[in-house]
Amino acid sequence: ALARRCHHRSTAMLDVPFLPFCAFLGTLGLLCVAMVGTWCQHWRGGFSLDGSSRTFNWHPVLMVTGLVVLYGAAALVYRIPNTWSGPKLPWKVLHGSLALGAFVLTVLGLAAVFRFHNSQGTPNMYSLHSWMGLGTVLLFSCQWAAGFGAFLLPWAPAWLRALYKPIHVFFGSTILMLSVASCASGINEKLFFSLKNGTTAYKLLPAEAVFANTLGLFILIFGVLVVAALARPSWKRPDSDSPDSRQ
Amino acid sequence: ALARRCHHRSTAMLDVPFLPFCAFLGTLGLLCVAMVGTWCQHWRGGFSLDGSSRTFNWHPVLMVTGLVVLYGAAALVYRIPNTWSGPKLPWKVLHGSLALGAFVLTVLGLAAVFRFHNSQGTPNMYSLHSWMGLGTVLLFSCQWAAGFGAFLLPWAPAWLRALYKPIHVFFGSTILMLSVASCASGINEKLFFSLKNGTTAYKLLPAEAVFANTLGLFILIFGVLVVAALARPSWKRPDSDSPDSRQ
Repeated sequence: ALARRCHHRSTAMLDVPFLPFCAFLGTLGLLCVAMVGTWCQHWRGGFSLDGSSRTFNWHPVLMVTGLVVLYGAAALVYRIPNTWSGPKLPWKVLHGSLALGAFVLTVLGLAAVFRFHNSQGTPNMYSLHSWMGLGTVLLFSCQWAAGFGAFLLPWAPAWLRALYKPIHVFFGSTILMLSVASCASGINEKLFFSLKNGTTAYKLLPAEAVFANTLGLFILIFGVLVVAALARPSWKRPDSDSPDSRQ
Repeated sequence: ALARRCHHRSTAMLDVPFLPFCAFLGTLGLLCVAMVGTWCQHWRGGFSLDGSSRTFNWHPVLMVTGLVVLYGAAALVYRIPNTWSGPKLPWKVLHGSLALGAFVLTVLGLAAVFRFHNSQGTPNMYSLHSWMGLGTVLLFSCQWAAGFGAFLLPWAPAWLRALYKPIHVFFGSTILMLSVASCASGINEKLFFSLKNGTTAYKLLPAEAVFANTLGLFILIFGVLVVAALARPSWKRPDSDSPDSRQ
């Protein structure tokens, strides 16, 4: 009994409240967006739509903003305690809209790199980064379409929603993990490409390398914290396994 | 009531049994080990201890074997239903031993790449891959030491074990995610290094690139499945939150 009491006291000590955690996560996410923008603007020549490497620069900015930060915000909507009572439809619309915004940025991010490759005569889709990244985006598009069809359109019966929901939740975390791993490999690859002839080599660790490596670590930490928040039982909607997912 | 019955029936349909899932996961893990060995043996010149790139080749093989596959096996020990009753100490010893084996292979994997860099005059620890990878190994060493000190040595009081256990569980999944992301960036980086002068360029997607990209995807799938299995509530030890972690 003493052990159990101590146990409850000690796990209570670890009970971080959700909203301050979210504020921290939001700050970290905005920092990632600011850092990827700064990297491309300050060291990689800024942005344009002319097919040069300044077009490519939209790729990391849009991917980090869409497929990591906005995606993470969308994933966490149902962890906000306000969503647990009252009508569910507005929160579904918010979740779906944030995810759609993330998806649009992601597709623009893909367009940026394809346009850059095509105008330079570089082949598309050869690196592991590109395979992982495109796989992640394809999973995300299926996830969005299936979520819209099952949870927002009125036709899906309760049993189908109940069947699909754990699958949707599983792929929600999975896509974020893959997206974060894609970012890490992409930043690593870009630094090897950029930091050689005419600049300080990557292996001499110039300021740009330290900055972008740090960005990569922040993105990893952001992803790990979102996936951990999603998995935390005490932050899940009570009765989240019940078939109450009707509009 | 009908909806609830349908719900139970439909989630039951998704209830994959743990042991067949483990057999699949074991096969996938062994396939990853075989593929990384084949890549280094067939395309990268095999293995030696002479400080050349044949010394480097131990690095991917040891990391995938230790920090991904053996680590994954160690993490899943407490999901085996046989561990849920009877004395817990033998299972703790198994978990700690598998993790120690994974750690030893990981340290040898680090030694391989440092020896290669030093004998070639290449700086160490400049790429994002190296930062992520070393960070992952440092977290793993803290995780192993703290787990040993708290759960295997007899001195730790129940309240300390109960306090530390969710932290240990959280970092267990986190380290695997980081390790898998490190593998993806490492394979990507190695292919850019290897497939240029004197070979078919990476961007022309020779057989080696297809093979190693596929290996990277298999490692990602392995990691996602282990993390998902760890998070799955119905596969957790019943009463896993109770303070019964005494030897």
